[in-house]
Parts: sequence; structure tokens; C-alpha cells
Amino acid sequence: MAVTPLRREDAPLPGSGLAARLAIRADEHRGPTAGLAPGFVQGNLAILPQRLAADFLRFCQLNPKSCPLIGMSAPGDPRVPALAEDLDIRTDLPRYRVWRAGELIAEPQDVRDVWRDDLVSFVIGCSFSFEEALTSDGIELRHIIQRCNVPMYRTSIATAEAGPFHGPMVVSMRPMTPANAIRAVQITTRFPAVHGAPVHIGKPELIGIADLDKPDYGDAVEVRANELPVFWACGVTPQSVIATVKPEFCITHYPGSMLVTDRKNTEFAIM
Amino acid sequence: MAVTPLRREDAPLPGSGLAARLAIRADEHRGPTAGLAPGFVQGNLAILPQRLAADFLRFCQLNPKSCPLIGMSAPGDPRVPALAEDLDIRTDLPRYRVWRAGELIAEPQDVRDVWRDDLVSFVIGCSFSFEEALTSDGIELRHIIQRCNVPMYRTSIATAEAGPFHGPMVVSMRPMTPANAIRAVQITTRFPAVHGAPVHIGKPELIGIADLDKPDYGDAVEVRANELPVFWACGVTPQSVIATVKPEFCITHYPGSMLVTDRKNTEFAIM
Repeated sequence: MAVTPLRREDAPLPGSGLAARLAIRADEHRGPTAGLAPGFVQGNLAILPQRLAADFLRFCQLNPKSCPLIGMSAPGDPRVPALAEDLDIRTDLPRYRVWRAGELIAEPQDVRDVWRDDLVSFVIGCSFSFEEALTSDGIELRHIIQRCNVPMYRTSIATAEAGPFHGPMVVSMRPMTPANAIRAVQITTRFPAVHGAPVHIGKPELIGIADLDKPDYGDAVEVRANELPVFWACGVTPQSVIATVKPEFCITHYPGSMLVTDRKNTEFAIM
Repeated sequence: MAVTPLRREDAPLPGSGLAARLAIRADEHRGPTAGLAPGFVQGNLAILPQRLAADFLRFCQLNPKSCPLIGMSAPGDPRVPALAEDLDIRTDLPRYRVWRAGELIAEPQDVRDVWRDDLVSFVIGCSFSFEEALTSDGIELRHIIQRCNVPMYRTSIATAEAGPFHGPMVVSMRPMTPANAIRAVQITTRFPAVHGAPVHIGKPELIGIADLDKPDYGDAVEVRANELPVFWACGVTPQSVIATVKPEFCITHYPGSMLVTDRKNTEFAIM
């Protein structure tokens, strides 16, 4: 199914989600999307054959904290109108990962040549949105200061299974003073569509994390004596769960290369 | 100034705030007010000479987490219409403490005989309201299970001073699992008029508490290995601050013998 680009009289607003997508689509932006189009929602991507889509949708519905679904396509349709009018899921991310039977086979910059009429796209909220709300409130995020990836851990918290999809919740960790941890609960509670409130505070061993210095994904960050580790359900959970299913075909975003949408982060605040 | 009791055709609703106050006024109820009139707001009481009232009011305004003012009288007036129509602050608490120059001189069941025309009553929100919201949500409170007083601690957190009023914040502590602690932040955030969200979680030494087993007020409770201590600003703060000022005259409630009002706890939820 082809997408007819919109005829535009005007150039897109600089710094907008649309401007970011057009730059990516035109191959003018290739790197990570962090910091691109501030204020606009970015999303994790999972593209699955229609045969698995109903179970995966049910998995998201059962696990809203780790898999907050913010957009979904019709089978074979590369558009996701709920997130942006002019959006082609095949070209609008800087980089993708293509998987066959659980094996990573390519990391291309667009996926038009492997597109199929039975593919269903799932866009899942990401922590960039709530991190923007935290930093706007003056809460410093260690991984941003250290210019590294947020540390992520597989936990002993099981997701609710749906069809073949099951596995542990993956969490991200941000160290905070107790006062900031309390404020962070209040702020992120307002954003249920982008992981919402933390799932755990303070005692990593209780959720199966043996060593904070050894994250399963991302980079370790310092947790100071006056801080608590604060844990949020992470959008890597669905990727990790899909990996165990080893679908015959699947496309995900390349880590850090997210889908930039036209929705504003503030739209996702429930109050 | 005398209060004319309302003429009532009907008896007060059993279990209501009014029924509780009438029973206390008639000397039919003498003990602690915990569990009396479920759903109705109870309050801490401080009665001060008018000369100190403006500074104390400013102290409450500057320290809303420890001193959330829910009602205040005109000088000499024993009524607090914002909290209940038929309310006489001199008779409607089961027991009082009367202080002269910082010395406890009596613990009477009414204070009509020491009443003065320059006395101003301050009613300050109490944790019973948010504890009701927590237990309704299924969060077990250790001190209620153990049938003892909540443990309270003087901290190294300074209150904002106003005139002669200054001193450390006193906090109450409730042990909770991390998941319950997160839920408790969400629930108590809804109740800013009754201490609101916790002020600290997890590391008592950071707020000057050397030993959780040795509370400054109330009783020690067990904190289990899978729990975090969660700390709320406490209505004992104003009493402790007033004690350091040693006003020439002052009346407070007897610990546990609170003012029962006609306002519902749910009215105090901001959303």
C-alpha cells in the first residue's frame, strides 16, 4: 500500500515532529532521536506479521506499564494516523532492525524493500516523554548528565502472558534523592501512556536485580549514598519478549532511533 | 462569648461527626477519637492568645505540610464554622492540655473555666484522613495492626520560622513495601490539607533520625527487610514548635483526643 505524500505549501515548523520525520525520511538525519523535536512524543516500534498481531495487542493491553500502546496500524498499512498524518513507518525512523526467526539480519535505514502486506505496526510510548517532564521540573537525570544510555535490567517481575508472548519485565533505573523520588512519582503518575509511575523504589534485590553496576541493557550510572534507585517499566520489555518468541519475521527500531510523532508530550498528561 | 446550641428536631445521624461531638460534649465519650465517626475529618488543636496568633498563622502558611490549617476561629469565639455549625471548641474534645509558660498545668475534659476573650483556635489537619484513604486502598498500616501509636521523630529538617515560632519538623513513619510506598505517594498527594505526600522515603539518617527503634513520640513498629520506612510531616510539629516558645497561656488537644468535624475526608481530596 503506497502513501501519497501531502502537498505542502509551507515548510514544516522547525523543531516539530514533522520536520524531524521529513529530515529522517530525506536521509538528512541519521543518528539517535534523543533531543530531536523537543516536546513531541517519541515511540518504540515493533512490526509483526498479522498472525501474531492479535496476541501481541492483547499482551500490550495486559501489560500497560511496560507496553503502553500509543499507536497501531492496519495490516499492511504503513500509516499510523493517530500519531501523525504524514507518517510512513517504513522510512521515518533513522534506523531499523530486521529479524528473521529471532536472528538479526539487517540494520537498514528504511524497510520499504522488506515490507509485506500482512505487517502490523505497534508504537509504544517511551520514557523520553516523562524524562522531559522530570527535567522541566528541575530533577537532574544522571544518565543525561553522564551522556550515556539509561541503565536497564531484566527483573523477577513476570509480565502477564498472551499467546506466545511472555517473559520478565525490563525496567530502567534513575537514581534520585528521596525528595526527588517522591516528586518523580507525582510527575510520572500523570503520564500513564508513557510508562507512568515507577514500579519499584529502593531495594533492587526484591525485584531480582543482583548488581546495579551490571545493567542488562544500557550503561551503569552512579547511585550516591543519599539517593535511592527508582525503577520504571521499560519499553525494552516488548522487544525482549518478542525476542523469546522468535517470530518468522519482525522489524523493530534500532536502539535510540525512535519514531518521532506529531503528538505533544503534554497531550499525554492525564491532568 | 456563649454558643447557643441549635434546636434539633432530629437526633444526629449515628456515626456522624456531630453525633461524636455531642457524645463527647455530654461526657458520654472520653477516650481517644481514633475510629470515631469514620469518614469525618479529625483535627489537631492549638489555642493561642491573640498576641501570638498572627505569627502562628504565618507559621502555618509557611509550613503547609506539617501545619495544614483546616479551620481557625475569631478571637474569643469558641466556634469554628468552617468545620461544623454546632461546634464548641471548649467542650467538644474528649480531653485537653492546658499550658502556662511552657508548663503543663492541667489535662481537663473541658476548658470553659480557663477560656479567655483573646484566645484564637487553630485546627490543623491530621493523618487519620489519609490513613483512611490508604487502608481503603488495601494498604495495611503497621501501627494499626499492632494497635499502638504511629512512631514519630524529630528531624533535621527545619521548619520556616515566623516570629517566635521555629524548630524541627516532626515526621510520622509507616513501613511499606516499595510498591505500596509508590501507591501511598499517589494517594496522599490527593490530600494536601492533611499533610499530603510523604516528605521522605527510605533513608532515615538523611533527615537526622539515628534509630527507627527509638521514636521521639509514639511507639516503635517493625520495619521488615522488604519494606521502606515512609515519612510524612506530622501535626505534632506545631505542638513541638509551640512548646519551645513557651507562650504565657496555651491549650492543645490531649494526644489522640482530636476534634471531630462535620467535614468528610473525601471533601479534602483535590481530585
